[in-house]
Amino acid sequence: MKTFIKKTSKVKHIVLLVLVLFCATFFRLSAQEMPTLSDGKEIYPGVWRYTIGTPDKITPVSTRGVLPDEKGLSQMASIGRSPVIPSGEITDRGVIISIPLKPDELIYGLGLQMQSFQQRGSKKLLRVNADPTINSGDSHAPVPFYVTTDGYGVLIDNARYMTFYLGNKKRKPAQANQALRTSAMEDGWNALNGPYERLGLGLETEALVEIPHSKGVDVYIFAGPAMKEAIARYNMFSGGGNVPPRWGLGFWYRVHSDYTQEKMLELANEFRSRNIPCDVLGLEPHWQTNSYSSSYVWSKRFPSPEQMLSELKTRNFRVNMWMQAFVHPKSPIYDALLPWSGDYEVWDGIVPDFITPEAKRIFIDYHRKTNVDIGIAGFKADECDNSDFTGYWSFPEMSRFPSGADGEQMHSLFGLRYQDAIMTLFSEKRQRTYNLVRNSGALAAPYPFVLYSDLYDHQTFINSVAQSGFCGLLWTPELRHAVSEEDLLRRLQTVIFSPLAMINAWYLQMPPWKQMDRQLNNQYVVADNSNELEEQCRKWINLRMELIPYLHAAFVKYKQEGIPPFRALIVDFPEEKEALKDLRGQFMMGDHLMVAPVTANGRGVVEKDIYFPRGKWYDFFTGESIEGGRNHRITVPLDRMPVYVKEGALMPLAKVTNSTEDGNSRLLTVRAYGDVKEPFVLYEDDGSWDVPLRKNEITWDTKQKKASLKSTFYKLENTVIIK
Amino acid sequence: MKTFIKKTSKVKHIVLLVLVLFCATFFRLSAQEMPTLSDGKEIYPGVWRYTIGTPDKITPVSTRGVLPDEKGLSQMASIGRSPVIPSGEITDRGVIISIPLKPDELIYGLGLQMQSFQQRGSKKLLRVNADPTINSGDSHAPVPFYVTTDGYGVLIDNARYMTFYLGNKKRKPAQANQALRTSAMEDGWNALNGPYERLGLGLETEALVEIPHSKGVDVYIFAGPAMKEAIARYNMFSGGGNVPPRWGLGFWYRVHSDYTQEKMLELANEFRSRNIPCDVLGLEPHWQTNSYSSSYVWSKRFPSPEQMLSELKTRNFRVNMWMQAFVHPKSPIYDALLPWSGDYEVWDGIVPDFITPEAKRIFIDYHRKTNVDIGIAGFKADECDNSDFTGYWSFPEMSRFPSGADGEQMHSLFGLRYQDAIMTLFSEKRQRTYNLVRNSGALAAPYPFVLYSDLYDHQTFINSVAQSGFCGLLWTPELRHAVSEEDLLRRLQTVIFSPLAMINAWYLQMPPWKQMDRQLNNQYVVADNSNELEEQCRKWINLRMELIPYLHAAFVKYKQEGIPPFRALIVDFPEEKEALKDLRGQFMMGDHLMVAPVTANGRGVVEKDIYFPRGKWYDFFTGESIEGGRNHRITVPLDRMPVYVKEGALMPLAKVTNSTEDGNSRLLTVRAYGDVKEPFVLYEDDGSWDVPLRKNEITWDTKQKKASLKSTFYKLENTVIIK
Repeated sequence: MKTFIKKTSKVKHIVLLVLVLFCATFFRLSAQEMPTLSDGKEIYPGVWRYTIGTPDKITPVSTRGVLPDEKGLSQMASIGRSPVIPSGEITDRGVIISIPLKPDELIYGLGLQMQSFQQRGSKKLLRVNADPTINSGDSHAPVPFYVTTDGYGVLIDNARYMTFYLGNKKRKPAQANQALRTSAMEDGWNALNGPYERLGLGLETEALVEIPHSKGVDVYIFAGPAMKEAIARYNMFSGGGNVPPRWGLGFWYRVHSDYTQEKMLELANEFRSRNIPCDVLGLEPHWQTNSYSSSYVWSKRFPSPEQMLSELKTRNFRVNMWMQAFVHPKSPIYDALLPWSGDYEVWDGIVPDFITPEAKRIFIDYHRKTNVDIGIAGFKADECDNSDFTGYWSFPEMSRFPSGADGEQMHSLFGLRYQDAIMTLFSEKRQRTYNLVRNSGALAAPYPFVLYSDLYDHQTFINSVAQSGFCGLLWTPELRHAVSEEDLLRRLQTVIFSPLAMINAWYLQMPPWKQMDRQLNNQYVVADNSNELEEQCRKWINLRMELIPYLHAAFVKYKQEGIPPFRALIVDFPEEKEALKDLRGQFMMGDHLMVAPVTANGRGVVEKDIYFPRGKWYDFFTGESIEGGRNHRITVPLDRMPVYVKEGALMPLAKVTNSTEDGNSRLLTVRAYGDVKEPFVLYEDDGSWDVPLRKNEITWDTKQKKASLKSTFYKLENTVIIK
Repeated sequence: MKTFIKKTSKVKHIVLLVLVLFCATFFRLSAQEMPTLSDGKEIYPGVWRYTIGTPDKITPVSTRGVLPDEKGLSQMASIGRSPVIPSGEITDRGVIISIPLKPDELIYGLGLQMQSFQQRGSKKLLRVNADPTINSGDSHAPVPFYVTTDGYGVLIDNARYMTFYLGNKKRKPAQANQALRTSAMEDGWNALNGPYERLGLGLETEALVEIPHSKGVDVYIFAGPAMKEAIARYNMFSGGGNVPPRWGLGFWYRVHSDYTQEKMLELANEFRSRNIPCDVLGLEPHWQTNSYSSSYVWSKRFPSPEQMLSELKTRNFRVNMWMQAFVHPKSPIYDALLPWSGDYEVWDGIVPDFITPEAKRIFIDYHRKTNVDIGIAGFKADECDNSDFTGYWSFPEMSRFPSGADGEQMHSLFGLRYQDAIMTLFSEKRQRTYNLVRNSGALAAPYPFVLYSDLYDHQTFINSVAQSGFCGLLWTPELRHAVSEEDLLRRLQTVIFSPLAMINAWYLQMPPWKQMDRQLNNQYVVADNSNELEEQCRKWINLRMELIPYLHAAFVKYKQEGIPPFRALIVDFPEEKEALKDLRGQFMMGDHLMVAPVTANGRGVVEKDIYFPRGKWYDFFTGESIEGGRNHRITVPLDRMPVYVKEGALMPLAKVTNSTEDGNSRLLTVRAYGDVKEPFVLYEDDGSWDVPLRKNEITWDTKQKKASLKSTFYKLENTVIIK
């Protein structure tokens, strides 16, 4: 074109210009192509930012509490150019972003999408809502970030309810498609929910994102080369993953909502005397004088919280405290927070605007003084999501907050800013923590918070473990109650292989193994077989204690490299895309364990088809080896679950103790699986804030078939060779 | 205040003014009160229009195809002043409207809300979507109109996805509520989903409506004095209800999607030879060469449609034709419609912009010529709703249409404009019609279209009959298949007492009574008991034929007075509000029949609690009388259903015929229930366009206990006295 122009006369120049303008206008009108976003800029290695218009003032990035891990990002491979280039347009309705999709490209992410997995072909409205039973994009942790099998990630930095059309919308052509027009099809009823419509596969299409109300937006592109690196870059951009203190990886138990100080102590004693490992006990709403909304004032059920917490500490229990962000007029901080809250109430309480430093400070100072200073180790930040499917209790989207956020933006950011306030409370005390939260969003990786939900379908809970890893989220498939012993054990198995292993017995007076029937349980009627059932449960809880060093190492990798500790298989084995593209019930825990929890089927023994990626795998329980690259039908008795170790792994297992405070929890047995090729990296972590995590390696002497470890923290006791 | 000002000096005036302004500002900031809408105007008796800002160009009212029934409205009682006065505000996000609610006021409407009934306390997003299984406001026929037990209706004239917060949002106070602060409550877990939060009852609250993107809106208020009159005024403002031709009230049967011309005729003969009444046969997608999207070109399965239609006509069958609005490239009207369609495809087809006269004309002209001129009597306008829960196939909200509507507005209006095109097609031929449609909205009453859905829960289908009458909609709980004979009969019973009595056997080769098992049915395996089951079904279909004159009269009242033919009981008995406020499974059909269909329970006989409004009622089947004002536990054998006649009614029943074309269908038996006080008004309707419906009265001679009727159309044959 350039050469051609040089050859032409001025008149021709003008004709050409007119022609070009005409064509440009014509194509714009007919094919509605959007202009490329103007200022793509590589802001970190492999991270590009594109901007259109004037982005909102309130976004996940603009309100972030943790900065990108620049050092970590700088250590990642540099990539020459952005893997995709977004285009966009500002309309009367807001902003539209378009990102091209290759014919065979598959999409994952958009947060904790509990009802779906692969997202290409779908429409997703990223709206914060508890208990999403429909596959519409509603989620208590929607994240405007996705990765594709083409090996890159996209973050739309906006806090509005965006709609993602993922490769399933076609613009109309300038004229009829002749191939379709002349097709021989007779009485065709062709497309309804067919694979083409679902996935938009086989065609060059686009991911379209509509952002309401905004006048501009930043789009961040994260390079791979593969999905795993794209996710890692996103997590490092978020500030790196979080590392729970070792106690956070122990076993958790939440007591009945109406427990008293006395009952708490009784239960703690029972756990210790019966050797049921437990690091954390959880308090539920009634610890305070008012809840729904919250007063944050200890109730008379707890005449001396300080004494209780101190007694529990001597028994190596930490306490996590249920809390809601909505502040009741009875709360001592109500008056101070009133000007720093939204204009609508929730459950008679006000909604603090945690985006303002004032609200955050008032909240932190109060909870430090009344709770954390006397020993509370963390919080369960409940109901910070929205309620379109659960009684409509939350603040309306049209709310106005002092920070300038409206209710829609605040819903997208509320969980994050609430987490940030709690994390800041602990970091100001230079104290590590690990918490629960019911709403999260973009850039969440650095926050030591694990999501949970009132949805209780076991398979959905399993799928969510795999799903959470695409977007910097952690998820616990918590066990509340069970409909049978089998259900209890199967759910417990899933929980053990999750970021936070918890029984949440907030509506049971006794642990579920003492009585499965909820009514009888609350009448303190102990079942005849409670001892046997307790023993079976203890076995799984013990296993959790053994897994802590391994799991802790996976979390350190999350922090240092951005690799999530729990991942869908397609993240680790992208070359097996065909087999793995919709595999949502299996996941990797760390680099070596593949977990495929099963659900109760009423018969105890479950037959399940499990996919094994290429290579050799070992049954974690029996040591039996299995050749990968295909499905195997596995028989799973009730006392086992499908967990497999990748060939070549060294797996450290800790000695079972009643809590991570027990020094014996640092005595290790190492299992060597097959032809070991690399050391296992693990980390000394005494739980303190100041001391950086010290790296240790368990090395393997191939000739002597012997593991060794130099550490003053851990001690290697045994080596077991699995062939 | 005025007097006070007169007494003061000028300085005092200024001080006072400053004070007033200060107070106004203070209260505005603290309580966020919104200004009253400026120009409330009574545009028809009892109908007020209020405006804020500059309303959208594309709204239900601005695009309406039928004008208000001014004559009908002028005959309604005039009301001195608007029963409520809306206030509003224009924000960055759009428009907010507030309408005050009294403490005990209950709310109904917002369209076909299949998962709910009383709306106060809820949040509803009026978003068009097929198969809404959640109670969120999504509906295939959302209508921004509600009525309250305070006896008025509100229409927000806007085509966007509005959010209604119905009395459940409280603005935060300027300072803490002392009553709450000092309440003695200890460890209260008070409000979660409690009655206050659900209903916002017992407090003066407000209905808040947020309208996205718009810069202004018209709000219409419809006076009562009671809900029934408010609904009637809304329907008359819509243009008055529609009156189906008598054949539309007969029995309908839709054939398997893959039927041929030959099979159609065979089935028609079978119906006639076996005396199964039927007025309308329905064709499904495969009548054309391409569907999903539609070509509208007869397939080779129908070598001579004209001949088939003519043969069917001689047997007194009319044909209704399945159709989708999305136009496949194969369709002869594709090229003409291309410039008059939206910018995104659906199922490879284009989306006509029926708001433009051009698209409407092209569509009408084609279908008149190829279909209606050869005998097609109506259409089933399928999939004109949206698809967030059903595969995401529809056009995106950000679509742009030649009329200036965007995709969001078009979704709210598509069904209405599509109905308008079809109705215009028939009205231009001066031909009456009755149709099916899957999406509707505001001002729908004049359109001869009945809604249906793929949701198939029987109780939900029953509830939707009552629900539809709040907002000018009609709904058929169509029968497709059944899981048992009991289910078949119970569903058939419901269908018989509905606006359109249809079996939709689009996936069954034979009528369901010949074989319940879907697979065997499609293999033409006739069940052993098919004759008995056919006889049981025939009994109910015969009943439908008997009900036509009564039902027709109810529809005429819909047209002439705006009273919907199917209504929730609270509309007719507002003084029994406490008992009726959540009664969704019973409804009035016309003025005299109360219907309470039951669903199969696996035992055949059903026990059901039925509420009887005050007064005396008679069992329609047994004549047994029941005293109202309370619940009765009713035993319902499979060959009966709970249908009750109000004391004092004259009920005309037609002679059973195979179609409404049979003159014997005008021979009447009149049942006189108890102490008859008024005549029954019925209408001669020969189906023609020009002749106005002629009013007849069945009068009652109290002394002689005899009914009489002067009519050349109907003939009174028998009188039955029920005491």
